Amino acid sequence: LSEGAGTDFGRAGLPWGVFTPLGSDRRRVGVAVRRQVLDAGAAAERLGAPGLEALRADSLDPLLAAGPDAWQRARAAVSRWVGEPPRQGLGDLLHPLESVRLDLPFTVADYVDFYSSEQHATNVGRLFRPDGDPLPANWRHLPAGYHGRAGTVVVSGTPVRRPRGLLPPAEPGRPPRLGATERLDVEVEVGFVVGVGSRLGEPVPVGAFAEHVFGVCLVNDWSARDIQAFESVPLGPFLGKAFATSVSAWVLPLQALAAARVPGRGPGAAVADYLVEDAPWGLDIALELAINGGVVSRPPFATMGWTAAQQLAHLTVGGAALRTGDLYASGTVSGPEPGQFGSLLEITAGGRTPLRLADGSPRRFLADGDEVEITGTAPGSGGERVVFGPVRGRVLPARG
Amino acid sequence: LSEGAGTDFGRAGLPWGVFTPLGSDRRRVGVAVRRQVLDAGAAAERLGAPGLEALRADSLDPLLAAGPDAWQRARAAVSRWVGEPPRQGLGDLLHPLESVRLDLPFTVADYVDFYSSEQHATNVGRLFRPDGDPLPANWRHLPAGYHGRAGTVVVSGTPVRRPRGLLPPAEPGRPPRLGATERLDVEVEVGFVVGVGSRLGEPVPVGAFAEHVFGVCLVNDWSARDIQAFESVPLGPFLGKAFATSVSAWVLPLQALAAARVPGRGPGAAVADYLVEDAPWGLDIALELAINGGVVSRPPFATMGWTAAQQLAHLTVGGAALRTGDLYASGTVSGPEPGQFGSLLEITAGGRTPLRLADGSPRRFLADGDEVEITGTAPGSGGERVVFGPVRGRVLPARG
Repeated sequence: LSEGAGTDFGRAGLPWGVFTPLGSDRRRVGVAVRRQVLDAGAAAERLGAPGLEALRADSLDPLLAAGPDAWQRARAAVSRWVGEPPRQGLGDLLHPLESVRLDLPFTVADYVDFYSSEQHATNVGRLFRPDGDPLPANWRHLPAGYHGRAGTVVVSGTPVRRPRGLLPPAEPGRPPRLGATERLDVEVEVGFVVGVGSRLGEPVPVGAFAEHVFGVCLVNDWSARDIQAFESVPLGPFLGKAFATSVSAWVLPLQALAAARVPGRGPGAAVADYLVEDAPWGLDIALELAINGGVVSRPPFATMGWTAAQQLAHLTVGGAALRTGDLYASGTVSGPEPGQFGSLLEITAGGRTPLRLADGSPRRFLADGDEVEITGTAPGSGGERVVFGPVRGRVLPARG
Repeated sequence: LSEGAGTDFGRAGLPWGVFTPLGSDRRRVGVAVRRQVLDAGAAAERLGAPGLEALRADSLDPLLAAGPDAWQRARAAVSRWVGEPPRQGLGDLLHPLESVRLDLPFTVADYVDFYSSEQHATNVGRLFRPDGDPLPANWRHLPAGYHGRAGTVVVSGTPVRRPRGLLPPAEPGRPPRLGATERLDVEVEVGFVVGVGSRLGEPVPVGAFAEHVFGVCLVNDWSARDIQAFESVPLGPFLGKAFATSVSAWVLPLQALAAARVPGRGPGAAVADYLVEDAPWGLDIALELAINGGVVSRPPFATMGWTAAQQLAHLTVGGAALRTGDLYASGTVSGPEPGQFGSLLEITAGGRTPLRLADGSPRRFLADGDEVEITGTAPGSGGERVVFGPVRGRVLPARG
């Protein structure tokens, strides 16, 4: 319940979410500031903020759909209300994070997962296709991706049950075994939330990214590596990824990340015109992956080979329409250095070199009861760090 | 506009859809009977049908969510109203199909596409992976599938714009080319519409199929083979399938297909317990694919290697939740005989042996302006054939 507890959100970020005060049954749109959440809808109503009807809702959906002008007005208003000095008379609308429940902040329309870290794609290619070129032939030419299951996107804090499925045969020629995954893994990712949709048949140019994407969250794309390995040729990942995808309860508006923008690292080859950015949308987000309270990896998002603007242009180049609430994730973030990998598959070299947790216990993959947390910060305005809401989840044992 | 025109729906089927009379702006739930559509919501209101509030809606969503008892009551009521003799006093609620617009009948939650025809998987394997075993190693052990794009599922009659995308390099070592697909294709499929959802983490047993699935539609899973070929290793089909997926405007309830049930053909190997059916859910649906009015193929659905009940059990075995409006398609239906293949890729052997249309013109893949239609019938009660609503679509030229 105290999902937001322990995070000091500062004033540079002001992420959006949906909360319910304990003891209430009404969801509200909120903004996290320091260790509190502001009831943004009630504040807008009390202060008569014009054009901000979208805040008086039980999800972010109306705000997402309202578009960039509304996003800027809403952020400007909240910034004034919680600024230095804060607007007087809002004290009763500020709830301690420990006293609220945080819900999935928007209705997920379609969910797409990209694959845009060169290091991750190379690491995985070496493990899954040891006899081939580790990097897929198309990787330097397009931001590869696939559709995931929107209906199993869950908010941070939701426990994740270890899935069962068909595991690879114990020896070649034998049938697969039905069982609980023995290779439950995390993937540290960054997610992008579409606000403004697009029309079927009309591509979204790479330069129109900020007209469509509202903001950024953190994502844990839980993965069952053995289920995935057996099922995924030729149609790609399916049930090995479909049992749960966790997102942070808080969505940072793009505007909060202006100071974090950096040139993309690039995919290592010249790209087609529709993928050429005229302004950089790489983001210098410092991520951390912790298991049972101890940090095990620090993936740097700035090392990604494709940016979210390029991903959006690619997703729509064939005319696929966007809808409010579309979520797309970056793909696992893995930097080039040891200690920067975004999955246990990579950290343990496919389970061959176990990780040692802070309490001394070894992990090849996740154990039942493990608590996984992904956190992130980025440069903000005025030198302050912008703080992402965490993505947390505890592993429940498989169904008996 | 006259999407339903030309089809005589008979009385054995009574499929559900959503229509708007021309000149009106209000969508209603309807049932197709003969060459008319009954305004089911208005009929229920007029006749005071108890417990059928779900019919007074602008989509099938409430009916889908209402569950099997409501589905049976609704079908029984409509059967009485339009039976022999028909209930008097409903004449003004019967609209000629030519005088209505048909809309997407339900809100698509998640869309999954399976791959359950052995002939199709083998045909495609030979073309895309000429050096390997044509049938993927997992095919006989599980109904392989992947998630598609729910937001680009469109109703029959919606024109489909030829997509652009990255096409394979003209010669090895060259970069891919951005261009309009040169290999636009159809896939003849049958779709299953989930009514009752399930809880995250709780598998749906194979025997619970009819407690969750409301009904059946026809699907054209438009495919751009060249885009697909370049993008799909290792993550599977993405933009080559995401520009449009067409569904029939009419959904036949499972109850209408009782006489069409046959044992599944099976995947050619012993399967895990969770995939063993206790009652057959193979369906003897006779499909036809026509281009520009001439039939080019007659795929028999009874030849599928995995049934829709097995697909649902597989989809949920890892705990993935279902939602009202989930749509899953069978995969391309291809029978073992010449003239039974469900895609041009197969009919023309990858474009090597052009098809000759009725007007004498050759086709390797679809040309701009081509009209594609998929139709189907199945055994119904009393010896009458059950008629599916058609899936139609015309190919528009690519954006300039």
